[in-house]
Amino acid sequence: MITLLESVDVRPSTVIAVDVGGTMVKGALVRGGAIVARAERSTFHHAAGAMSTIELVVDELLFTSDMAGSRATSIGVACPGSVHAGSGRVRNAVNLGWEDEPVAERLRATFSLPVAIDHDARAAALAAGASAGLDRPDTGPAVFIPIGTGISASLLLDGVPLTGASGRAGEFGHMRVVPQGELCACGQHGCLEAYASAGGIGRRYRAAGGSALLTTEQIVSARAHDAVAQRVWDEAIDALATGITAVTALFDPLCILLGGGLSRAGDALLLPVREAVGRSLAWRPLPSIQISALGPDAGLLGAALLTRALRTTSQNQEMT
Amino acid sequence: MITLLESVDVRPSTVIAVDVGGTMVKGALVRGGAIVARAERSTFHHAAGAMSTIELVVDELLFTSDMAGSRATSIGVACPGSVHAGSGRVRNAVNLGWEDEPVAERLRATFSLPVAIDHDARAAALAAGASAGLDRPDTGPAVFIPIGTGISASLLLDGVPLTGASGRAGEFGHMRVVPQGELCACGQHGCLEAYASAGGIGRRYRAAGGSALLTTEQIVSARAHDAVAQRVWDEAIDALATGITAVTALFDPLCILLGGGLSRAGDALLLPVREAVGRSLAWRPLPSIQISALGPDAGLLGAALLTRALRTTSQNQEMT
Repeated sequence: MITLLESVDVRPSTVIAVDVGGTMVKGALVRGGAIVARAERSTFHHAAGAMSTIELVVDELLFTSDMAGSRATSIGVACPGSVHAGSGRVRNAVNLGWEDEPVAERLRATFSLPVAIDHDARAAALAAGASAGLDRPDTGPAVFIPIGTGISASLLLDGVPLTGASGRAGEFGHMRVVPQGELCACGQHGCLEAYASAGGIGRRYRAAGGSALLTTEQIVSARAHDAVAQRVWDEAIDALATGITAVTALFDPLCILLGGGLSRAGDALLLPVREAVGRSLAWRPLPSIQISALGPDAGLLGAALLTRALRTTSQNQEMT
Repeated sequence: MITLLESVDVRPSTVIAVDVGGTMVKGALVRGGAIVARAERSTFHHAAGAMSTIELVVDELLFTSDMAGSRATSIGVACPGSVHAGSGRVRNAVNLGWEDEPVAERLRATFSLPVAIDHDARAAALAAGASAGLDRPDTGPAVFIPIGTGISASLLLDGVPLTGASGRAGEFGHMRVVPQGELCACGQHGCLEAYASAGGIGRRYRAAGGSALLTTEQIVSARAHDAVAQRVWDEAIDALATGITAVTALFDPLCILLGGGLSRAGDALLLPVREAVGRSLAWRPLPSIQISALGPDAGLLGAALLTRALRTTSQNQEMT
């Protein structure tokens, strides 16, 4: 038994990673931290719903791993909603049509493989932290801030994202940055998300008379010759800097990693954010503020990392 | 040896706790979580400085413990500044005149007792968490917010306050709640501390034409017949609710404990804060928001709790 476990450590096993979104179910075979094969389907490809699509994607990847002579040994799933990692159940995932879905149990029953599951933002944070070398003990806390349709912030402690008392930690987008500000979907006024998410920037640009045809990426590029784009972007940077200042004062992180779609803006985002946070925090040293190198695969790679806990558990069980 | 250690567990040992402030050095003998004797001196009682005053207070308490036939077995110190618990050194404690003081080393050399030291806000948070039963594993995160001259917020994970990468976690008072707001001592505009600390409330009340003679406590009481007091208080509550909303969204705590001098306002503080936070967070369940039962002894009791780590360490060392 020990020999087999040691061989697992030397030759990394292949795992199936699934990142479940409201539009697409993305899957991958991951070995030694690298994606070696992919499969992707529209979430509602099956009339039977998202769960059947996930099974289809897993089945394709399992077949691929068999063909390659390296059968996948476990399944890691990242998904939205209120995810309870212990029971493997997902509640209130409105975009997936799930009220209370026993995701892990169903995949275990179908594929006879161990299954790990967690919230997609936490899975992405896990991968972002690992890729930045922040998953070793005593590296100090770090924060991963993905900016896309919404904005969240995961506090990483020894590389593990804080979950919170009810699994809702990290709802950074609903920090109020402008008193009596714009109405947010959450019902509050002046939320960070309303000003600085990719969705918020596009909506505010159009409301201020900007062209309805531009994507958020194009709005960022149009700044030099478009005063409305410049103003909306400046307000987004100011809102984001207010949020990052609060996060820095509260957590004192070693490092802040920006991710998600908006982070593709690169220096146009990073440089003014660093400058504005530096002005606010003149009274203390700044954490390092970086763009995460991971990109859109953060969720998939995080789903693969979730399966590490399964291996540790089964090793412990087999060794006792 | 084992017998001796077991007897320590059964009959709790007496420890010396010291809470070092810019005005007073407060000391106590603590046994089984209760204060059994006190000693207190002005911090600059000695021309030789704060360190000599601490030694005087410890010496008095050690003598008292000897007289009671229960000699103190360790010293716990809570103090301001940049405290490095590992080395026992304190840097940049401006109110104490310390640039880089080897506090633990000096007390160990003088009294031949083990010494534990940490930041006063973290020590107080440790005690507040323990008194609320939040120091057991898996109780979920909690936040302790002492509101006095300044405002901080300690994130408690299994009852242990987050330290941060450079020992500065918890600087909640410098979260910006009003864009282009009032100037704070930190150089930023619109900090929470400028609006909602006891000092900030007094200053804003006087600047708005209120009587220069009222204490912050009296300003709170004067609300019913003093429109300026009512407005300044309402703005303090709004600022505090903005901060607590952000903390709740980020940490998802089980419980938020309000402490410090301003928490003596009781329901005048608690009820409007709960209502305003409830309005902001209509999209999610609220954490429990309470006033900490500990009061002004939080720092002292926290200093006593710091010595637990010494006992655990020495038990481990003696048993290996």
